[in-house]
Amino acid sequence: MIDFNPMAKIEPSAQMGFSGNRLIRDAEHRDETQLEDALTNKHARYLVFGGNKVILRHSDNGSGSCLRFNRDEMEALDGDVQTAILLGTDESAPVLAVTSPLDLESLKEPLAAYDLRSLLYSGHITDADAGAVAQAGSMLHWHATNQYCGRCGTASMARIGGFRRDCPECGLRIFPRTDPVVIMLPVSGERCVMGRSPHFPAGWYSTLAGFVEPGETMEAAVRREVQEESGIHVGRVRYHASQPWPFPHTLMIGFHCEAVSEKITLDDNELEDCRWFDRDEVSRMLAGDHPDGLACPPLKAISSALIKAWIESG
Amino acid sequence: MIDFNPMAKIEPSAQMGFSGNRLIRDAEHRDETQLEDALTNKHARYLVFGGNKVILRHSDNGSGSCLRFNRDEMEALDGDVQTAILLGTDESAPVLAVTSPLDLESLKEPLAAYDLRSLLYSGHITDADAGAVAQAGSMLHWHATNQYCGRCGTASMARIGGFRRDCPECGLRIFPRTDPVVIMLPVSGERCVMGRSPHFPAGWYSTLAGFVEPGETMEAAVRREVQEESGIHVGRVRYHASQPWPFPHTLMIGFHCEAVSEKITLDDNELEDCRWFDRDEVSRMLAGDHPDGLACPPLKAISSALIKAWIESG
Repeated sequence: MIDFNPMAKIEPSAQMGFSGNRLIRDAEHRDETQLEDALTNKHARYLVFGGNKVILRHSDNGSGSCLRFNRDEMEALDGDVQTAILLGTDESAPVLAVTSPLDLESLKEPLAAYDLRSLLYSGHITDADAGAVAQAGSMLHWHATNQYCGRCGTASMARIGGFRRDCPECGLRIFPRTDPVVIMLPVSGERCVMGRSPHFPAGWYSTLAGFVEPGETMEAAVRREVQEESGIHVGRVRYHASQPWPFPHTLMIGFHCEAVSEKITLDDNELEDCRWFDRDEVSRMLAGDHPDGLACPPLKAISSALIKAWIESG
Repeated sequence: MIDFNPMAKIEPSAQMGFSGNRLIRDAEHRDETQLEDALTNKHARYLVFGGNKVILRHSDNGSGSCLRFNRDEMEALDGDVQTAILLGTDESAPVLAVTSPLDLESLKEPLAAYDLRSLLYSGHITDADAGAVAQAGSMLHWHATNQYCGRCGTASMARIGGFRRDCPECGLRIFPRTDPVVIMLPVSGERCVMGRSPHFPAGWYSTLAGFVEPGETMEAAVRREVQEESGIHVGRVRYHASQPWPFPHTLMIGFHCEAVSEKITLDDNELEDCRWFDRDEVSRMLAGDHPDGLACPPLKAISSALIKAWIESG
């Protein structure tokens, strides 16, 4: 078993939303046969996407909703598979992701279409399925945006069940993309710095974040992003946890870092507010009883996990 | 100063090769004017690439070789700039990277062409220039392989000095790619596991490594890769350091991890040998006095840093 993890109960990364993937991918040992075999395997199960939404069948007896459809159920939904990728195997049964030109408006209970964020927070699926659907969403977006070779413009072809695309003209091999993002809580003693994106619900404050750029370490990215967004200088940087985040194919890498300056200079391109919070105020935001209704993002997001870990360390 | 780092002397990531980049990129606040301004700025300096090699001017007085050419020197090399990107600014002067159809065979002393790995180990350049050239090499490779829109196949256009490419047809925005790779030393008490790639020089053994795949945490990637390559099951995973690695645009993320099983099952697609080493033997490999001539990769590579940190912790 590849996903043998004796640390699952205590490792911070294993507590994050989308982190419970248990599929055996074996991407480095695939050839062109596994996808074909999977498509004719009667034990195969399908995650079915329409655009960036995935289809869930709500349970009618309370024992759990289901993301995994068998071949007949999948074909009954629409049947016109556009893209099929082999995510991996689960207890020897193949698990695939397919896109379909479904009319999402016409879906009837017990079927419903969810974007991946709503699905995560719905509580309807297992951690293992949340991990599988994150993998599926990331890979399908990558296929949709890599239909053509970036080097020569020729139509490229999916290979090894979707873990690679090859250009038949110039031979370029393209692998699924995963974008590292640093996300961090700057702290100084009993205070931390949080910011508010204009896209946030009213009252939310959260950690700062940004993409790692070519030619920098993760720690350099933490310092650069904190300084760009808040003007704060950062000293020590301590890794906490990572999280796959399928919007569209990001790896969130979470840190606590030491703020070594005080003055906040807001980057108003990125944030509509950024300020210091003391530990008591943040505790109330996490608990949902802040007097002014301020709050942090929901648990399962690494931002909240970073904030909660700081509160619990105090 | 963005790159203010009071931890530079003790932070493990700051000790790695290619980690010393000090350019201010300010990529999120650029428009279409900065590159134009930089190309007419007489203080601008150019890193000049021919293919995947960069031009170095050896010092004739021992005071240091130079990667940075002014406009006249750059044009005297060949003058026919193919791609120009604005890496960032250094004390307010723009630093650019350009590709040129140089005939590398015709270069004469004091000029020489180096691939980036040889340049790093040559000792000819500063840590800051090693970081800048890593950024340049990664970005230029990304531009070369993203000339066309992956979604619709139309020729794409470099924007904001090369930190983005836009499709004029479908509007897709593509950002420079950075591929996260986990690299790790599995340890158990006084022993560790190292492997030998068939591409290594004779006698070399090193850490295991592999790309993070979509939909997994970094810790899950560590467990999957160690198990795929060596058959070893992994318990605890502890982050050590990261390193930009421009082959072609990778972010190496280094870990020590706890081996919780003993039997090695070699993946002979990836490795030609993999075995347990005890601490004394590894010490001699690092020191260069192993009786059978076994060795680890050179310092400045994160693999050696992980191995050395384990030895020094014992």
